[in-house]
Amino acid sequence: MADPILIREDAASVARLTLNNPGALNALSDAMLAALKSELEALANDSSIRAIVIAGAGKVFCAGHDLKEMTAGRAAEDGGHAYFNDLFTRCAEVMTLIPRLPQPVIAEIHGIATAAGCQLAATCDMAVAAEGTRFGVNGVNIGLFCSTPMVALTRNVPRKVAFEMLTTGEFIDATRAREVGLVNRVVPHDDLRAATDELAATVASKLGAAVKIGKSAFYDQALMDLEEAYAFTGGVMAENMMLRDTAEGIQAFIEKRKPEWSQNEDA
Amino acid sequence: MADPILIREDAASVARLTLNNPGALNALSDAMLAALKSELEALANDSSIRAIVIAGAGKVFCAGHDLKEMTAGRAAEDGGHAYFNDLFTRCAEVMTLIPRLPQPVIAEIHGIATAAGCQLAATCDMAVAAEGTRFGVNGVNIGLFCSTPMVALTRNVPRKVAFEMLTTGEFIDATRAREVGLVNRVVPHDDLRAATDELAATVASKLGAAVKIGKSAFYDQALMDLEEAYAFTGGVMAENMMLRDTAEGIQAFIEKRKPEWSQNEDA
Amino acid sequence: MADPILIREDAASVARLTLNNPGALNALSDAMLAALKSELEALANDSSIRAIVIAGAGKVFCAGHDLKEMTAGRAAEDGGHAYFNDLFTRCAEVMTLIPRLPQPVIAEIHGIATAAGCQLAATCDMAVAAEGTRFGVNGVNIGLFCSTPMVALTRNVPRKVAFEMLTTGEFIDATRAREVGLVNRVVPHDDLRAATDELAATVASKLGAAVKIGKSAFYDQALMDLEEAYAFTGGVMAENMMLRDTAEGIQAFIEKRKPEWSQNEDA
Repeated sequence: MADPILIREDAASVARLTLNNPGALNALSDAMLAALKSELEALANDSSIRAIVIAGAGKVFCAGHDLKEMTAGRAAEDGGHAYFNDLFTRCAEVMTLIPRLPQPVIAEIHGIATAAGCQLAATCDMAVAAEGTRFGVNGVNIGLFCSTPMVALTRNVPRKVAFEMLTTGEFIDATRAREVGLVNRVVPHDDLRAATDELAATVASKLGAAVKIGKSAFYDQALMDLEEAYAFTGGVMAENMMLRDTAEGIQAFIEKRKPEWSQNEDA
Repeated sequence: MADPILIREDAASVARLTLNNPGALNALSDAMLAALKSELEALANDSSIRAIVIAGAGKVFCAGHDLKEMTAGRAAEDGGHAYFNDLFTRCAEVMTLIPRLPQPVIAEIHGIATAAGCQLAATCDMAVAAEGTRFGVNGVNIGLFCSTPMVALTRNVPRKVAFEMLTTGEFIDATRAREVGLVNRVVPHDDLRAATDELAATVASKLGAAVKIGKSAFYDQALMDLEEAYAFTGGVMAENMMLRDTAEGIQAFIEKRKPEWSQNEDA
Repeated sequence: MADPILIREDAASVARLTLNNPGALNALSDAMLAALKSELEALANDSSIRAIVIAGAGKVFCAGHDLKEMTAGRAAEDGGHAYFNDLFTRCAEVMTLIPRLPQPVIAEIHGIATAAGCQLAATCDMAVAAEGTRFGVNGVNIGLFCSTPMVALTRNVPRKVAFEMLTTGEFIDATRAREVGLVNRVVPHDDLRAATDELAATVASKLGAAVKIGKSAFYDQALMDLEEAYAFTGGVMAENMMLRDTAEGIQAFIEKRKPEWSQNEDA
């Protein structure tokens, strides 16, 4: 039996998904996108999981779409147009699913994250990178502008930084990636997994219901004007206050003791 | 007679508001929010004031909402739901009033700025922080996601930075806060008041009518597309040009002398 | 015959525009705006050009509007109101033309970039600055808030940074400008032209049709919500895939050779 293209390992309320096609630099092939979609949809309804890590097996995190598979798609009567439209639609489904998940999603990045691989890194709610990791949206080098990766990239980094990466195809390293907002933490390569696991464990230790409420509101309020955003989030906080576990969390804080949360125990 | 919960001191066209409930870490209690709203509304119509500073008495700037008062609110028949909705509405009124004031508002921050205290810092037009100040939106630690502080925070700092602060509850220090755009200036603790006063004096030395026009346009144009923003601000600048004091300012610049502004003298 | 107010030099698919009124610090006068508009409109239809540089002759890049010309405008019956409205409309036409051009536009900045000069720097898709260059939106110093420059500035730098620059009138230097996202690269003054030319040459070496598609999508998707942005850019990428030169670029990548692009040769 072949190795699965995507490995899921659960431990201590954290699900770790590993892109497992190192021979193809973990390309976001049709099979990889389907596996990611399926696993993320399952996680959306799995209340036992309170944080998700996405990592890559082998030498790199992810090198983007599978160019050989895309080229094979040209054999169709329409030159591949329908296939390409469908491919980018399926990729977008995965990328829009991540911010909609109830759990925070952390990218664990090493080697390179290029094109749609850089998009995946930018799409995750947080990212931890190994020193020396290189990030690029370098499709322009082969005549294919990284228009869909751009959607995620431009929502993370300043405008001129994104424009330069997209039109020069040049890489930025992990240190610069943190400076511009593309990753949260940069650690030595040997500490990468431990650092990601620690961040995931921190998030997983919080009240899952509160994180779920907050993550959803995070993205929803971002496009609202100030008045609308406050009207919306004020209601969100009032609902959050009505959770029994939140009442316990506040009471514990006042009494200077640890909260006893029913929900995380159930989970 | 008790100390007022909010102190206002005016000097040289600058109003300094000091949150004055150090025993409660200057919590944004019902009384504090009411005092802030009242004072800010008075300042909105006070043309003698051209800059506003918000500072905190005692060891910290502001530690957020008053958790004991909120817990007491649970005694109501509905478990406090109506009270919480009203509380967050009143808090939002203060937070949306600040960008609507004609005068720039500067937060002077020391110790900690947490939860709604961090929101207040983020909401002010500018912020000066003492070295060592810590910023956090750490409600998640007690099961109450900082959804309303998030509105202000995400309009100041990169997306992944905000997400990490909100879901880990971890603090960032003043140096990092400046790197990510949450504060303008970081100074030694002993220089904090002088540095804030200097920034306020600089702003107050400008033509108040021009600053009022510009501050209002600053927030209004931010949500417009490029064409709309230019159509709007082009009209704003043409109006600004019609001010007699602006004509004098430009003439003085051409003649290499100081402008003589009637308006700031009147004020 | 007088020197032209705007010099255009083409070389190796790069057009270099030099603001050439050093005695007026390359002010964006009526004549300069008209020359810029005319030249940029010509470039919009010039498929032989794949990158554009905007530089300034003499000691500075650009010091903003022409205050003497503006003051002369006050002689009109309406005190200049119609003229000012028209001036800001014409300036906005130039500033909105730049992101709409098919080619990336790079500002090459030295000395100072103030007021509408800072706006021009912020408006260009990318910017290279000489060490020691100073950036300011300092109209507030003469009672004229930089409301139109603010449109470009606030789309490049964090909110509090922009607010401070606009209301204090203080300069930031090139190093800080890079930190906050206003410029891409800072180089020694003597290397400025070479560094800009190198960046322009890099961009011009890419497939022009792909860069054109991508630049247009860059600005269009920025204001969309995530779903809309992906639906839009997915279609853009599928179209990009149908270009013969893109097929060749991908095939060349798979075969580890340089692409042979018909389009850039034709151009």
